[in-house]
Amino acid sequence: MIGDGCKIGAFVEIQRDVHLGRNVKVQPFAFIPSGVTIEEGAFIGPHVCFTNDLYPSAVGEDGELLTEAGWRLVPTHVGPRASIGANATILCGVTIGEGAMVAAGSVVTRDVPPHMLVAGVPARVVGRRPAGSVSVSGSGHGS
Amino acid sequence: MIGDGCKIGAFVEIQRDVHLGRNVKVQPFAFIPSGVTIEEGAFIGPHVCFTNDLYPSAVGEDGELLTEAGWRLVPTHVGPRASIGANATILCGVTIGEGAMVAAGSVVTRDVPPHMLVAGVPARVVGRRPAGSVSVSGSGHGS
Amino acid sequence: MIGDGCKIGAFVEIQRDVHLGRNVKVQPFAFIPSGVTIEEGAFIGPHVCFTNDLYPSAVGEDGELLTEAGWRLVPTHVGPRASIGANATILCGVTIGEGAMVAAGSVVTRDVPPHMLVAGVPARVVGRRPAGSVSVSGSGHGS
Repeated sequence: MIGDGCKIGAFVEIQRDVHLGRNVKVQPFAFIPSGVTIEEGAFIGPHVCFTNDLYPSAVGEDGELLTEAGWRLVPTHVGPRASIGANATILCGVTIGEGAMVAAGSVVTRDVPPHMLVAGVPARVVGRRPAGSVSVSGSGHGS
Repeated sequence: MIGDGCKIGAFVEIQRDVHLGRNVKVQPFAFIPSGVTIEEGAFIGPHVCFTNDLYPSAVGEDGELLTEAGWRLVPTHVGPRASIGANATILCGVTIGEGAMVAAGSVVTRDVPPHMLVAGVPARVVGRRPAGSVSVSGSGHGS
Repeated sequence: MIGDGCKIGAFVEIQRDVHLGRNVKVQPFAFIPSGVTIEEGAFIGPHVCFTNDLYPSAVGEDGELLTEAGWRLVPTHVGPRASIGANATILCGVTIGEGAMVAAGSVVTRDVPPHMLVAGVPARVVGRRPAGSVSVSGSGHGS
């Protein structure tokens, strides 16, 4: 389900059962698998990679491909007006709070509190999201 | 050469002279250049990026594009049933052991022992791959 | 503007107002948004992700999508014969010096001096770019 006013870049994969609120912007090369919910006005940077399985495997102990019956999806939630920077990796099961920001290149392994800025591998809180960054910053991220 | 039963996602580049064993699962946006060998039942997460040149350059000292004659490919090997997490980067020349797991967002710069879990930049061993993660984990990684 | 002799891989997005000098090699899955200038003979590895907005947002305080009027692009500059490794993230506003090298998986947050090698998250200088890496290294990075 993709809300009104969303802008989706080129080379993006959005799988079934993903929910995007209205006015979400998804930049090129983002990967958004089943189980991810993104609320309105969020920004998903280029090359952002979500996941939905903590310990993925191709095959079971018998060496054969796992089937849907083995499915155990772990959901992820992105709050309204959160911004996820370029090439960030989001482990499944986390909640990224309203208005939070994830710095480019971060690997998010646990919840991000609302309105905070996280950075690094693994991502840690480095402060509040800079004031005015929601209203001042341009849409200069292209497409 | 792509083995029987492989599942390849969208937006994947697999170059010539790549070997994939049977039942390998390759997620969207994976980049697998020449020189990479992946054995049966391995899982290659979304946005995983392999390489095949330690010191890549576009041009030689004369400023002209390098040609195939300058080619010195460095091979990389992924053992059977290994899992490489989302957005991991794999430097060329390494061997990822049988059943090993690379955490999402890691940068692998040296060999990964069999059945171990590595994480970080650069990736270091953080323990054994969690028990049961091969058989319990679903195929919840979509496509 | 794309110079003569450039080689551009598959699944690449190069936006308007990007300047590529001659003989630049761009590997698959690179994202090069408006505001990026890359000089001749540079190498842009697979999955390299540039940016052009330090604090990106989808919407303004009114919750509506930001328009071009809100645009404040931050330019980035890559010098001649620089090499940017696989899956590196480049924050906008930096200059990567002539002949410098960015290691695979790095997150570049400030200027890189000419002929130096940087690595890590955030990227730091770890030494000079290895001698001969311009002329010896093959074009083994495929496509």
